[in-house]
Amino acid sequence: MAVVAVWKCDRDGKMFDDKKAAEAHDKMLELAANITDLIENSVKGISEEHSEAIGLLLARNSDKLAKACKGKPEALLEVDEDSSITPLAANQ
Amino acid sequence: MAVVAVWKCDRDGKMFDDKKAAEAHDKMLELAANITDLIENSVKGISEEHSEAIGLLLARNSDKLAKACKGKPEALLEVDEDSSITPLAANQ
Repeated sequence: MAVVAVWKCDRDGKMFDDKKAAEAHDKMLELAANITDLIENSVKGISEEHSEAIGLLLARNSDKLAKACKGKPEALLEVDEDSSITPLAANQ
Repeated sequence: MAVVAVWKCDRDGKMFDDKKAAEAHDKMLELAANITDLIENSVKGISEEHSEAIGLLLARNSDKLAKACKGKPEALLEVDEDSSITPLAANQ
């Protein structure tokens, strides 16, 4: 029997057959975590659940967010809002 | 006596001598408002005050946020966190 490499993202344990996809997922979660940390350190009284959900929401839409930051704020209106956001804690 | 143009941003009434500065400020507030709307429509139970404070926080750091979205999540660690954020409502 052959053995094949499977790539695991250690932030959330998700598995990928493709290394590039695993790296992109890890980068997205790193962005989400950094947004969450920034919000928690700057906005008094925000809950961890909310700051995590917002980090994930924005990281999952980083392409449109980048465009919005570069002078096209209307790009954020194209985000599919009903992509419901479950905080990471709920996944574990 | 001469008359000179002063540029007012109608989102928050702030005045500028320079048109470009006024436009940049307006664009920043538009980005803040779009981030706030996205958060309010996607994250259940978040308060208007928190979503507004987060919109302003991220819009004021749009340069670093854009960099973070483009593959350098660590760029967000350079944000000056103690730039305290007062929601717009508190200004009016």
